[in-house]
Amino acid sequence: MGSPKENLVIYNSLSRQKENFQPLHGAFVGLYVCGPTVYNFVHLGNCRTFISFDLVYRYLKHLGFKVRYVRNITDAGHLENDAEEGEDKIAKKARLEQLEPMEIVQQYTVDFHNTLTKFNNIPPSIEPTATGHILEQIEMIQKIIAKGMAYEVNGSVYFDVQKYNSEEEYGELSGRKIEDLVAGTRDLDGQEEKRSSLDFALWKNAKPEHIMKWTSPWGVGFPGWHLECSAMSTKYLGEQFDIHGGGMDLKFPHHECEIAQGKAATGLKPVRYWMHANMLTLNGKKMSKSTGNTLLPAELFSGENDLLEKAYDPIVVRFFMMQAHYRSTLDFSSDALNASEKGFFRLMEGLKLAQEMPVSSVSSVNVNELISQFYGAMNDDFNSPILIAHLFDAVKIVHAVLSKNETITQNDKELLLKELNAFIFDVLGLKELTSEGDKSLEIVMELVLQMRQNARETKDWTTSDAIRDKLAEAGIVVKDGKEGATWGKG
Amino acid sequence: MGSPKENLVIYNSLSRQKENFQPLHGAFVGLYVCGPTVYNFVHLGNCRTFISFDLVYRYLKHLGFKVRYVRNITDAGHLENDAEEGEDKIAKKARLEQLEPMEIVQQYTVDFHNTLTKFNNIPPSIEPTATGHILEQIEMIQKIIAKGMAYEVNGSVYFDVQKYNSEEEYGELSGRKIEDLVAGTRDLDGQEEKRSSLDFALWKNAKPEHIMKWTSPWGVGFPGWHLECSAMSTKYLGEQFDIHGGGMDLKFPHHECEIAQGKAATGLKPVRYWMHANMLTLNGKKMSKSTGNTLLPAELFSGENDLLEKAYDPIVVRFFMMQAHYRSTLDFSSDALNASEKGFFRLMEGLKLAQEMPVSSVSSVNVNELISQFYGAMNDDFNSPILIAHLFDAVKIVHAVLSKNETITQNDKELLLKELNAFIFDVLGLKELTSEGDKSLEIVMELVLQMRQNARETKDWTTSDAIRDKLAEAGIVVKDGKEGATWGKG
Repeated sequence: MGSPKENLVIYNSLSRQKENFQPLHGAFVGLYVCGPTVYNFVHLGNCRTFISFDLVYRYLKHLGFKVRYVRNITDAGHLENDAEEGEDKIAKKARLEQLEPMEIVQQYTVDFHNTLTKFNNIPPSIEPTATGHILEQIEMIQKIIAKGMAYEVNGSVYFDVQKYNSEEEYGELSGRKIEDLVAGTRDLDGQEEKRSSLDFALWKNAKPEHIMKWTSPWGVGFPGWHLECSAMSTKYLGEQFDIHGGGMDLKFPHHECEIAQGKAATGLKPVRYWMHANMLTLNGKKMSKSTGNTLLPAELFSGENDLLEKAYDPIVVRFFMMQAHYRSTLDFSSDALNASEKGFFRLMEGLKLAQEMPVSSVSSVNVNELISQFYGAMNDDFNSPILIAHLFDAVKIVHAVLSKNETITQNDKELLLKELNAFIFDVLGLKELTSEGDKSLEIVMELVLQMRQNARETKDWTTSDAIRDKLAEAGIVVKDGKEGATWGKG
Repeated sequence: MGSPKENLVIYNSLSRQKENFQPLHGAFVGLYVCGPTVYNFVHLGNCRTFISFDLVYRYLKHLGFKVRYVRNITDAGHLENDAEEGEDKIAKKARLEQLEPMEIVQQYTVDFHNTLTKFNNIPPSIEPTATGHILEQIEMIQKIIAKGMAYEVNGSVYFDVQKYNSEEEYGELSGRKIEDLVAGTRDLDGQEEKRSSLDFALWKNAKPEHIMKWTSPWGVGFPGWHLECSAMSTKYLGEQFDIHGGGMDLKFPHHECEIAQGKAATGLKPVRYWMHANMLTLNGKKMSKSTGNTLLPAELFSGENDLLEKAYDPIVVRFFMMQAHYRSTLDFSSDALNASEKGFFRLMEGLKLAQEMPVSSVSSVNVNELISQFYGAMNDDFNSPILIAHLFDAVKIVHAVLSKNETITQNDKELLLKELNAFIFDVLGLKELTSEGDKSLEIVMELVLQMRQNARETKDWTTSDAIRDKLAEAGIVVKDGKEGATWGKG
């Protein structure tokens, strides 16, 4: 067995199997993730995707890889219903709200960043925008045309899927067959220009009323949505790079088209490992605005949604998401969140107690084996729920050592603390919920509980009642247990 | 006298006098501010500029204007020492740190946003990047060439200052005369291509080792620094717009060149009102990295700089900055910050007490006059120090009413509260410093101070000492005064 870094296994959507991870350039890893189209508040399903790849980014860094993580912002070119015709999503929102499209982009980009910061996501290394790379997109189209894989009609340029498929395999990622795809498409308005209904736009001629448009060799227009990711990943990660991630819903057609564009332009497979994060459901059903079965991150944090019992801290929600593997569907419900919240506090409490473990001359517990289980879980396609199960095994050991049923040496204790901290904070990206103010409060509460104890011992019920009432006013609940009184926010 | 909105007066750097503000399009205001070059942590002087224009933005909105506020991110094209030759600031940093330039851009853009968020700045409506507008810059150069005001040499394009000056007035903003400028320039390496040493680059031919470059009609290169602001302000605010702001150091050559570019391209004066925020000094001296007389925002918030006595909350720093007019220089020192901190808490306390004012059937104080003084101060070129002086007049009135030396009616009280809230929070952008945790702490501390009082009255020195020690541990200092004990964080 080599170092943990050499044993990472990733499920590759392209090969449909787990593969040992071999980066192209030694310790350097290129990671590209499709970012949001910023025309609305980021939805929870998208957050799950970005949190999943934040875990991937964090673990790769923890393993010692030097990762360049690129996640784009789609600020133009994404048409309604992912179709080839219709209005740009951002331009439409701008028209409805009577704003400049870039005001829409700014508003929702700021919201997106704020939301991901609350979830304790690390910003990517580079966050390029589609409108910031019009020239690069034009140059990529020129390359694809030069290879004979795209054609111009009336100021628009389309990718020739049938031509590409005669040399390469269109559908290799999604497992779709081109014959089935052709049979399944209908003739749509405005598609007459295309040689085949499967062809997709690399550049679209802009109608006069179109707001977001640029000058190109084919006239004034705008790039097709699929193109931006190919142009930006190539610019910042090279013609071939290690990992491309995104939500499951992007596998077809978006990622399929990215593969085709990349191969057509350079002859190379653009991506070595394709990773897809699975969907979220809410109370067992698909999230959907029309049925009201939907939830925004802000509602989750404030509790202001009838589907929720109460508010949840973003870090608790993050922990909840980590308790499912990124390739499994995950169902949101108050019950499930409540259970996760309890688990989260139990884990954090365990970490605190671990520092207080008494040390012995021998360890009756196998710390090395436990730690190799942490790595084993994450090395198995980033299996965070299994990692968390092993972290709870560690918490059990902590309690066993504290109650003298097990023993641990100083060295083992230090090693365990180091790795627990690394996996809980650096890899899972969790954090303590207590703020500055809470730290002072903790110390002052020690004093108050002591005085409450004194009052009870001297049967000074006036003082003890006054303490109870005032704490209730502060939203603090005291619980008496075997080990003495503890407190929490009610 | 009309509504406050009609009486706003702005000092126009171009005319060197105060002018009544008349927006071009009724209630719509276009505001452009030069943003940071993101190759380093944002420095405090820049923060002052952005906080000054945040005040401008907030007050314009408070007056009822619909403001489109554009502030750019310079992520390419800004050469060392603002010179025409040399290395791109971002590319140089990338080379030194062995990163892709866009990784540098991302790192410092994130820091910039985080810092301004701490200062409670509102994000601008649009935040365009230089690299995101290469095509727009190329198109603007083409217009200027077509007007005969720029020429191409070896793949670079220069603005012809002498030619422009024969028709327009180069130097009108900075008050410099072209003859003096010519006499004052030296022949520099790499300037031989220019017809005159005053000419500035609109497009620079890229040497092979240059990393950040794009294809243009003049070959591969990159845009000149002055051009991006002209291209982006034109795109988002039009060929002529209302207010252009920036730091005093940008007046020449940057803003002078913007005026020349705009007039050359469109024949119109691009900007109606030019506003410039003044500089910061530190302990009476110019901030400078080489002498160590420098301070980063992060050091100010943590207190980790030998020039500081302690840490300051960003909102206290904001209040401190608001206590000087944006056109005055401002000196940073621990003494001045300490004084502002006291003032800040006195103002916030006054606002809290205002709610407790008893009401009478008549007002002995003139609330309407006081409020018109608030507007009067801000309408006089955004004079925040005068506004703050009037807010303290209001605090005096609050104390006078509370001590029954003055009276106020219910209506006047409501009006005063409404306007105090508006000016303190919406216009000045201040906020309460107490966090969630602190609120619980406040209530629990009432309890602790009561018990401390009881212990003293019963001469129970053991309890009273225990309280003192534990509070010290929590970083809490108790002060005994005429009105009873108060506490604060030490």
